[in-house]
Amino acid sequence: MNIDMQAVHETMQPKIRKRWARLFRAAYLTITIVGVVGVIAVTVPNLHRFFEGVFWFCFSFAALFFTAEYAARLYVAPFEPGRELNPHWQTRVIYARSTMGMIDLIAVLPAAGIVILGAHSSGAYLFGILWILKLLRYTPGWSTLLRVFQQAWEPLLSVFVAFIIVLLSAGTLLHALEQDVQPDKFGSIPDALWWAIVTLTTTGYGDVTPVTSLGRMISGVVMVCGIGVFALWAGILANAFAGEVRRRSFLRTWDMLTKVPLFQNLSAETIADISRVLKHRDVSDGSAVFYRGDRGDCMYFIVYGEIEVQMPTAPLVLSAGEFFGEMSLITGACRSATTRATKETLLLALDIADFRDIASRRPDLSLAVHEEARRRMGQGQAESGEGGT
Amino acid sequence: MNIDMQAVHETMQPKIRKRWARLFRAAYLTITIVGVVGVIAVTVPNLHRFFEGVFWFCFSFAALFFTAEYAARLYVAPFEPGRELNPHWQTRVIYARSTMGMIDLIAVLPAAGIVILGAHSSGAYLFGILWILKLLRYTPGWSTLLRVFQQAWEPLLSVFVAFIIVLLSAGTLLHALEQDVQPDKFGSIPDALWWAIVTLTTTGYGDVTPVTSLGRMISGVVMVCGIGVFALWAGILANAFAGEVRRRSFLRTWDMLTKVPLFQNLSAETIADISRVLKHRDVSDGSAVFYRGDRGDCMYFIVYGEIEVQMPTAPLVLSAGEFFGEMSLITGACRSATTRATKETLLLALDIADFRDIASRRPDLSLAVHEEARRRMGQGQAESGEGGT
Amino acid sequence: MNIDMQAVHETMQPKIRKRWARLFRAAYLTITIVGVVGVIAVTVPNLHRFFEGVFWFCFSFAALFFTAEYAARLYVAPFEPGRELNPHWQTRVIYARSTMGMIDLIAVLPAAGIVILGAHSSGAYLFGILWILKLLRYTPGWSTLLRVFQQAWEPLLSVFVAFIIVLLSAGTLLHALEQDVQPDKFGSIPDALWWAIVTLTTTGYGDVTPVTSLGRMISGVVMVCGIGVFALWAGILANAFAGEVRRRSFLRTWDMLTKVPLFQNLSAETIADISRVLKHRDVSDGSAVFYRGDRGDCMYFIVYGEIEVQMPTAPLVLSAGEFFGEMSLITGACRSATTRATKETLLLALDIADFRDIASRRPDLSLAVHEEARRRMGQGQAESGEGGT
Amino acid sequence: MNIDMQAVHETMQPKIRKRWARLFRAAYLTITIVGVVGVIAVTVPNLHRFFEGVFWFCFSFAALFFTAEYAARLYVAPFEPGRELNPHWQTRVIYARSTMGMIDLIAVLPAAGIVILGAHSSGAYLFGILWILKLLRYTPGWSTLLRVFQQAWEPLLSVFVAFIIVLLSAGTLLHALEQDVQPDKFGSIPDALWWAIVTLTTTGYGDVTPVTSLGRMISGVVMVCGIGVFALWAGILANAFAGEVRRRSFLRTWDMLTKVPLFQNLSAETIADISRVLKHRDVSDGSAVFYRGDRGDCMYFIVYGEIEVQMPTAPLVLSAGEFFGEMSLITGACRSATTRATKETLLLALDIADFRDIASRRPDLSLAVHEEARRRMGQGQAESGEGGT
Repeated sequence: MNIDMQAVHETMQPKIRKRWARLFRAAYLTITIVGVVGVIAVTVPNLHRFFEGVFWFCFSFAALFFTAEYAARLYVAPFEPGRELNPHWQTRVIYARSTMGMIDLIAVLPAAGIVILGAHSSGAYLFGILWILKLLRYTPGWSTLLRVFQQAWEPLLSVFVAFIIVLLSAGTLLHALEQDVQPDKFGSIPDALWWAIVTLTTTGYGDVTPVTSLGRMISGVVMVCGIGVFALWAGILANAFAGEVRRRSFLRTWDMLTKVPLFQNLSAETIADISRVLKHRDVSDGSAVFYRGDRGDCMYFIVYGEIEVQMPTAPLVLSAGEFFGEMSLITGACRSATTRATKETLLLALDIADFRDIASRRPDLSLAVHEEARRRMGQGQAESGEGGT
Repeated sequence: MNIDMQAVHETMQPKIRKRWARLFRAAYLTITIVGVVGVIAVTVPNLHRFFEGVFWFCFSFAALFFTAEYAARLYVAPFEPGRELNPHWQTRVIYARSTMGMIDLIAVLPAAGIVILGAHSSGAYLFGILWILKLLRYTPGWSTLLRVFQQAWEPLLSVFVAFIIVLLSAGTLLHALEQDVQPDKFGSIPDALWWAIVTLTTTGYGDVTPVTSLGRMISGVVMVCGIGVFALWAGILANAFAGEVRRRSFLRTWDMLTKVPLFQNLSAETIADISRVLKHRDVSDGSAVFYRGDRGDCMYFIVYGEIEVQMPTAPLVLSAGEFFGEMSLITGACRSATTRATKETLLLALDIADFRDIASRRPDLSLAVHEEARRRMGQGQAESGEGGT
Repeated sequence: MNIDMQAVHETMQPKIRKRWARLFRAAYLTITIVGVVGVIAVTVPNLHRFFEGVFWFCFSFAALFFTAEYAARLYVAPFEPGRELNPHWQTRVIYARSTMGMIDLIAVLPAAGIVILGAHSSGAYLFGILWILKLLRYTPGWSTLLRVFQQAWEPLLSVFVAFIIVLLSAGTLLHALEQDVQPDKFGSIPDALWWAIVTLTTTGYGDVTPVTSLGRMISGVVMVCGIGVFALWAGILANAFAGEVRRRSFLRTWDMLTKVPLFQNLSAETIADISRVLKHRDVSDGSAVFYRGDRGDCMYFIVYGEIEVQMPTAPLVLSAGEFFGEMSLITGACRSATTRATKETLLLALDIADFRDIASRRPDLSLAVHEEARRRMGQGQAESGEGGT
Repeated sequence: MNIDMQAVHETMQPKIRKRWARLFRAAYLTITIVGVVGVIAVTVPNLHRFFEGVFWFCFSFAALFFTAEYAARLYVAPFEPGRELNPHWQTRVIYARSTMGMIDLIAVLPAAGIVILGAHSSGAYLFGILWILKLLRYTPGWSTLLRVFQQAWEPLLSVFVAFIIVLLSAGTLLHALEQDVQPDKFGSIPDALWWAIVTLTTTGYGDVTPVTSLGRMISGVVMVCGIGVFALWAGILANAFAGEVRRRSFLRTWDMLTKVPLFQNLSAETIADISRVLKHRDVSDGSAVFYRGDRGDCMYFIVYGEIEVQMPTAPLVLSAGEFFGEMSLITGACRSATTRATKETLLLALDIADFRDIASRRPDLSLAVHEEARRRMGQGQAESGEGGT
């Protein structure tokens, strides 16, 4: 029983490369998108008439699916590897209070709506829009975004306070200036605030515009402040983003580097430098990494999977821990052989610019790659007369 | 008397963790928000009729409160620690000419308005909007924003001059082109400037639009310039912001580092490197820092307060200067014990990416943490069989 | 035959400095721009009447030209230097599946339109707009832009998912709130989504605006989210851009540095440092690099071409590998002689700020430049009494 | 005669701290602003009637002034220090083809307009708007902006080409989709392009909006592309700006550092590090640098001018090359004495964060400052019992 539950848990995780996990993901995404599009379409009167029956079936199915999914995730949460030590209820609480746990709970709302509000109530339908949140589970980089806001909330908040101050001041001023001329549009501060937010965000519907000279001048100042708020937010987020991206890339590659034999003899400083610049590349089974004759601008390290170099005599098979494509970095020539993945493969790519930069500061990297390339070429020539890629 | 005044002064400062200071803050924020919302609501005719009496009481109370507050702050200014040496009037001048001093003075205006303009005058009410400025005292990151503008005023000004040049040129050109076709909208340069600012900020109300072909082409150029101005401001502010955030974080952690015994033996370079990357985290009394089974991505140093590690046998109590959570950084495992603050606590968090990065360049940090972890594990095993977190 | 094909291939590449290549480029750009402008103009009824005949001739000519060009590029693809080893069909596939290959194929569409839809069909005309894509071949920095999107697609995608979530939620909410008040504008979710996208992108046409209080509040939140999306995208792209620009500049200068004798004796670290900061400057035959009396803020290295320094006695001719303008960097004086290119010349410029910065960390650069300057001045004084520039 | 001309030249340069130069600047700015405001005001019919006479006098005076100024600048150009070696005509050409030279020439246009078009022609008036360009001479940071565009023109251009491609494609598509429904608004591609640019820049006048479903979808895509263009430009400019600001600050401080005796014994690397972080601060005669009791967050080096430290016994006078305020950096205490400039003074400010950062890496800086501080305190105690600031 225990083992089954762990398999169920694993099947429902993203990034698992097994058959059932893929089927689950495909079903999950299809149901989410069909459900949301259905809810949108059913509100159009013409469409509503024609396929209400079909929609009702799909909607109920999706509501049921997401309810079952939430129950299943809650049940199998304790079977997550590395959390077995905890009491069962505690691991379930960890899942339930996580961001995705709450989104999964929200996705149960439409089902609850059907039960409470009745089957064909349009109110129940509208909750279906919330299923769109389910897409976040398979959105890469989502966690980076969240961390960016966590890191930068202080300056973002202070810009927001400045935004509110400008908003209220502008609304009050325009109320004072324009209430006699346009009593229907600037008669109260809440009315004037509608104008203020439309102007400060530079949206500019044009349903409310000032007509007095002074009102227009203040309006111009508000617009410029709006640009300033944009610019400040952009500046803050650009800064926070740069830090997070560096951090994430560094962490993702660090552990993998220890699996590459070439790096075993490098100094800790060189490894940290390389961690900062390596890029990930997923290659699906059967697709080419590069073709013979392509310009070469990076070398690759195999984290897992298998790569086949199509040499003239016999294909050369490389597996986890090995590297290829280094000849283009050293000699600058085009790729001399097409290279394909024969399994699902994860590669780490080292760009030529980063290679040269690091190699200039850390002679050990340069030495290790050159030595391996020389060794391989000697071997290749002994075997087939043309080695390296 | 002297000591009392210092207590009064302290009570009115932000970030003081004492009972009276908290009560004061709560009152201050409540009165500010109730006051501002009241002023906004009272301008709506329907609401005005029903609760004018209530509003009038609240408004007067808030006006009185802020007047009294300003007087008090002015009186106790000389009792600020570190400024006792100055003559009293001079310290009061320092407060009065500070940004917050001026805002506090502005907040007295509504009270003055009541006295001068009469009790129920709507003019007096409108000054109440200015109380929103009072929020700045408790907005973290506000001083960073101010410094950003101070640092970047030169390029911001030159973009503003470019903005004015484009504005005037566009207004004049469109006046020349469209004055015959739309004399009511482009009849004078000030009229055309209204169109120009609405267009250049990409607000686009649509109340004034060019109709000639040439006018529309110039209009397109103006819109693109508007995007350029946005982009330039964003670029300038992003750049200035990055510098200020680095500076602030560096300064806030520097002094605290000296209180952590672990860092006493590190080199000045290592300490400066760590100062640049440590993040602050406030933990209120009783809340958890992390739970058993959470993924661990940082270690913590205690600046002040008290932390309880919930070990199986007996809780381990850590206090200022100690650190915890380092096992997750070294082994990559989940947290092995839940950790709670038992007092108001300030932690410095060292992220795993930063730890690895610095440790690769500065072996002394790595050594110090590993040694302490080993020592603690030995001790922990001797005591309870499971140490470290 | 083989050599002719290579010449044809070379003629059609950008950045080739030969007579036929230039003529080809001029024809290519003229036909592209005339073709696109013609298609735009011919849709205006007044213009259509007058010069339909002329337009028809131009359009057919351009369609023919681009069809012929595509055929030619496909045929000569195997004659690209460095790809001769591949079988002919494979090199043609490489060209056909490249970005520019697909754009060239798209540019054949109008010709196909004429054949299929008939000569004077307006449908055929409209495909002519696609010729604008042809400009990308000669747009410098285009490949950098593409790489930026490749590098940053993950966070960009997650912001886009957030954008969609806000869009759908806002549309649904406003549909629920306003459908009774404005059934023609918010009657279905697709209608409400039109309002949502116009508002979220802060475009604000004003054809659909909320009128209920709650609708307006939500509207305000959507506008602020819109600013946030702008800001996030700007932040992500700023960050990715910084990396790409550094990479490109580093790679472009690296290979050229080895041609400059001065750098032969520098350490690898110094060369990598200089690679990061050197800027390219193309100087056309006969134009001046700087004039006597100009302020000097950089020194130049000649990659190819020829430079003439107009000394009082006789002009000094410098060729590839030599450098000039270093005196201004060392002494801070104005340029002492006007300098002109006598052939098409490519220079690498080393800015004074970068020179000082690198020289302070790498004494070998400073030493090499000073020594050469001293040697040249001695020589110059021996020859003409005034050397160096 | 020669000396007089040099004085005239100097008088007309920005940043000269002499009496006549200041008077000239005041006149120049007053005439520019009065002239431009006058031109704007005179187009308003009501104002026109009342003060046409006054305006006419001012306008003529300004036109005359700027014409005379251009002639004078052209005449004295050869008397610029450091350019005396050039033949006179060549130095004049250098001025005439410089950016400010061309702006000065443009400012002569209104005068030419009066002569050619006749005195009271409104056409002549409108050229007066161009005087606004004259403000650029005194806009700090203007040259930085220009360099940013020079550095980043390649990616900016490629984004612009992408902008044009989206614009034309969107215009053509909407023309095809909406020409039957709204023939007056989307009847020709130029008409549709007006809609496209208003939408792509997210201006959104609302005078032309799509009504078909497909048209609205494409419209949504165009708006999102518009945000992307904003974001890309912002990203490119942010990146280029960061580089330029670093460069400018580095260059401005580098030369001044050699005048500070404290730095004579520091290594070149330390000086380069300090150059990168020092900030300029102009202090006018008589104003305070800081007050006793202020928090201290930087120390100052005097480039020129004179500073008076108000010690209890007798004021301490510091002049060029000396430094002060270092005690706050070392001890963290408030300023112990008020400090005033007694002449126009230029200071270089070293921020506490930068000081700590550099001092941790370069012990020679820390040592030099501490030694000087100790020496001064000893001296101060010997003299007055309280030294340092």
